Amino acid sequence: MATSFFGAEDRFRGITVDSKVEQCVLSDFPNLLKESITQWKKNNKRTIWFKVHLDQSDWVPLLAKNGFKFHHAKEDYVMMYLWMPKDELKNIPNYAHTLLGVGGIVVNDKSQVLVVKEKYATRTFWKLPGGYVEPGENLVDAAMREVLEETNISTEFQSLISFNHSHGRAFGCSDIYVVVNLKPTSYEIKKSDQEISECIWMDIQDYLTHPEIHALNKLLLEKYLQYKNNEISIDCVSGIHQTLNIPFCFYSVRDSKKSISDVGKQLKIS
Amino acid sequence: MATSFFGAEDRFRGITVDSKVEQCVLSDFPNLLKESITQWKKNNKRTIWFKVHLDQSDWVPLLAKNGFKFHHAKEDYVMMYLWMPKDELKNIPNYAHTLLGVGGIVVNDKSQVLVVKEKYATRTFWKLPGGYVEPGENLVDAAMREVLEETNISTEFQSLISFNHSHGRAFGCSDIYVVVNLKPTSYEIKKSDQEISECIWMDIQDYLTHPEIHALNKLLLEKYLQYKNNEISIDCVSGIHQTLNIPFCFYSVRDSKKSISDVGKQLKIS
Repeated sequence: MATSFFGAEDRFRGITVDSKVEQCVLSDFPNLLKESITQWKKNNKRTIWFKVHLDQSDWVPLLAKNGFKFHHAKEDYVMMYLWMPKDELKNIPNYAHTLLGVGGIVVNDKSQVLVVKEKYATRTFWKLPGGYVEPGENLVDAAMREVLEETNISTEFQSLISFNHSHGRAFGCSDIYVVVNLKPTSYEIKKSDQEISECIWMDIQDYLTHPEIHALNKLLLEKYLQYKNNEISIDCVSGIHQTLNIPFCFYSVRDSKKSISDVGKQLKIS
Repeated sequence: MATSFFGAEDRFRGITVDSKVEQCVLSDFPNLLKESITQWKKNNKRTIWFKVHLDQSDWVPLLAKNGFKFHHAKEDYVMMYLWMPKDELKNIPNYAHTLLGVGGIVVNDKSQVLVVKEKYATRTFWKLPGGYVEPGENLVDAAMREVLEETNISTEFQSLISFNHSHGRAFGCSDIYVVVNLKPTSYEIKKSDQEISECIWMDIQDYLTHPEIHALNKLLLEKYLQYKNNEISIDCVSGIHQTLNIPFCFYSVRDSKKSISDVGKQLKIS
């Protein structure tokens, strides 16, 4: 039988113990932990992380009693940590604290914008179709998916219009709401019964003066009109990160005069 | 003695029990929970949330045994939930899953850009000063703070240049990296010994061809030069949300021809 936890070491001299990998009889846990902490202290380890799965959640109160705090949780595990150095200020990266939402400005060739009323809203104002970005989802894909789910309108990406950053939102998180202009490729509305109470094509001029539309949503339409008038778009290009070798989406003002540079080719930008 | 938990009800027919508000003797917990779940089921409640603080973390394994899962955690509590309806698909909002970082393109009047090398990097490439946004912090403030902390250069905001979205990053989160152009108001570098191994003003032309600068960082400089040539900036304006009555920061392409509209005035945009 092991007399201490092994864990996996990271480049910051941290140790991560996974409760699924190093299972033990619960009555052995206190001594195992005590012995491990002695060893880690001796070897100048910095942060000790315990990834505790639901099935081993008996570990949680025992870790808490030994000074561990929570860091983050996902459905089937909670991550707890203990900062070891006495002579160094705690230096632990924060977990994500920003919710990410999207809205779509979808305008047809009669200068009408697609608007919805939500089913579960406290007061029913007209708003843009949209919702939260799913884990691992791209912004533009999320906007197109939400528009399709809520209204059954298919779309193509045109330009990013704006984003809005605010604090103290759901779960105490901050919130970024990204608005994109999408061009409809179908026109027949079939609203989602689960989320939406009404959905219509509304004349832009009515929208801009409508009493049941918030000022912020009007500002978004002003910004859309500015984009159409000035023909300055914010593009989304995809590329491959050179060192991490993962895809990315890069958003910036489009340079209509310029083709892809050598740097862009290196990043396999498309 | 109470025979069940009360909790606080939300507009989605959910109930939240806070372990600090409704403390109990641990041996009473199983019966209290059982009786409560019976009541909530009878009253058609939807999501049951338990906010369990570190001091009451003995509740965690007992909740897990009753089918509760983790939702999210902050340093001193973990939020667990149970979805009750049998005839409705689970509909629980995700917690934040996007990390938010910022970088600053700081260029002096000799066309030199401020670059740093990180102390704890695996390979030492030159990069832009920057780091993670703190909870509740605005993007521009975060960029200016990071530049000041790392290099001791004071700055003023000029324009947002770009942002980059990728997935599968730290803690399995997605990541948004926002780059802003900042104008230096001081010039003497004094680097942070804790985080930075080197910091210099580098000629832009050297930067664009330097072997120790990643392609993505070169793309950022290309986008900065495009912004300077075309004079198209992405502005940050502050306003007050009409219904939530909280401040926001709104980012969009600047319209040089236009003054603040009536809508902008309603939002107290500055």
